[in-house]
Amino acid sequence: MTEIDLQQGSEHADGVVDLLGMLSYTTLSGFFRLSADAASATSLRDRMALAEIAVGEYGHYRQLLGRLEQLNVDPDAAMRPFVPALDAFNARTRPADWLEGLVKAYVGDSISADFYRMIADLLDPRTQTLVNDVLADTGHADFVVVRVREAITENPSVAGRLALWARRLVGEAVGQAQRIAAERESLARLLASGDPAQKGKIGRMFARLTDAHSGRMAALGLTSQSTKAPPPDRS
Amino acid sequence: MTEIDLQQGSEHADGVVDLLGMLSYTTLSGFFRLSADAASATSLRDRMALAEIAVGEYGHYRQLLGRLEQLNVDPDAAMRPFVPALDAFNARTRPADWLEGLVKAYVGDSISADFYRMIADLLDPRTQTLVNDVLADTGHADFVVVRVREAITENPSVAGRLALWARRLVGEAVGQAQRIAAERESLARLLASGDPAQKGKIGRMFARLTDAHSGRMAALGLTSQSTKAPPPDRS
Repeated sequence: MTEIDLQQGSEHADGVVDLLGMLSYTTLSGFFRLSADAASATSLRDRMALAEIAVGEYGHYRQLLGRLEQLNVDPDAAMRPFVPALDAFNARTRPADWLEGLVKAYVGDSISADFYRMIADLLDPRTQTLVNDVLADTGHADFVVVRVREAITENPSVAGRLALWARRLVGEAVGQAQRIAAERESLARLLASGDPAQKGKIGRMFARLTDAHSGRMAALGLTSQSTKAPPPDRS
Repeated sequence: MTEIDLQQGSEHADGVVDLLGMLSYTTLSGFFRLSADAASATSLRDRMALAEIAVGEYGHYRQLLGRLEQLNVDPDAAMRPFVPALDAFNARTRPADWLEGLVKAYVGDSISADFYRMIADLLDPRTQTLVNDVLADTGHADFVVVRVREAITENPSVAGRLALWARRLVGEAVGQAQRIAAERESLARLLASGDPAQKGKIGRMFARLTDAHSGRMAALGLTSQSTKAPPPDRS
């Protein structure tokens, strides 16, 4: 798909705008959530570190806005259709405390990043590059892994609660992705693309997504409760 | 005062580090508060506009951090002494709603900016320039003035409540400035500098500060109450 196709509204142009709009609002919401997490950190060093990560997320949002503007799409109009679904997801998965917030930011954001990459893989190379760029980790993963592992070492009983919380986040994220795809015809069409090679690609991507999630749970020191889970990381 | 004096710890070097540390934490807290205000805005356009202003404030914080690092001062150590006083100020002046939040961000932040500029005027030109740079408005004033005036047009009775709130903010800001100056010897020494020319300067600066506050109240469409006595401390 060429730049001109995109600007003139080709078959996939709506899908691109939907993906960019949804991802823009996701990064803007991520910025708000990370800023709030930063503000509630007890140590000044954590507040500083998380604020930097939040502003990194805002930089991603700005990149997406810039691309929408290049495509002559009003960012507000592109984001608005996704506000209710994403706000509802955030309302349903409001962390009860600082640790749940960290796990949400890592596990929840990573799994939604995997979904976005999956959709981007069905689109033009320029959109793929941008999406991969803005989904790059802003240093958050390392921060969360260290803090969560410290908390588990201090009090091993939190591991079970956080593992359950992570499973719930994944369930909600999958449900949200299905609802959005069902509501947005352009995304549904894209994912249901008739090309058999694409279908095989989606299957492989889902497998990668599951593997990536298990890897993150292990990194956090949380036993994955899925039946297909790898043995718990004892490191 | 030269760069070498500052790095080697001249008479005013502690004052510079205190000012930069206090202002760094003020801008970091401002960033947190503006992000929270942005997240709670009802329209997506307001959320986007305020998030941009919040990140502008974070840019100021980064500039200050950069200067502290140039002076070989650990930003965390420079900020930490001011965390309790500034957190207490924010806790005492927690806005009851969105409009009070806007007025606090404009009236409260402007008056503290005026204090910081006052202190910077007693320091080296490089510090003065940096402080004036980071206190430059990030577009917040226009945003707040438009929104507050709209709210007053819609419901004129809010003007009285917001005018009282603004007076309370000024009272708290003055109290906070006095407490900090009393606690931090380096700042007290700076403000109590024996130079009679400096004393005249401080008097003129206080007059400018009062005028600037009255100007902001008028811009908001709030009658300035400055001729009356300050309200009793409600804390």
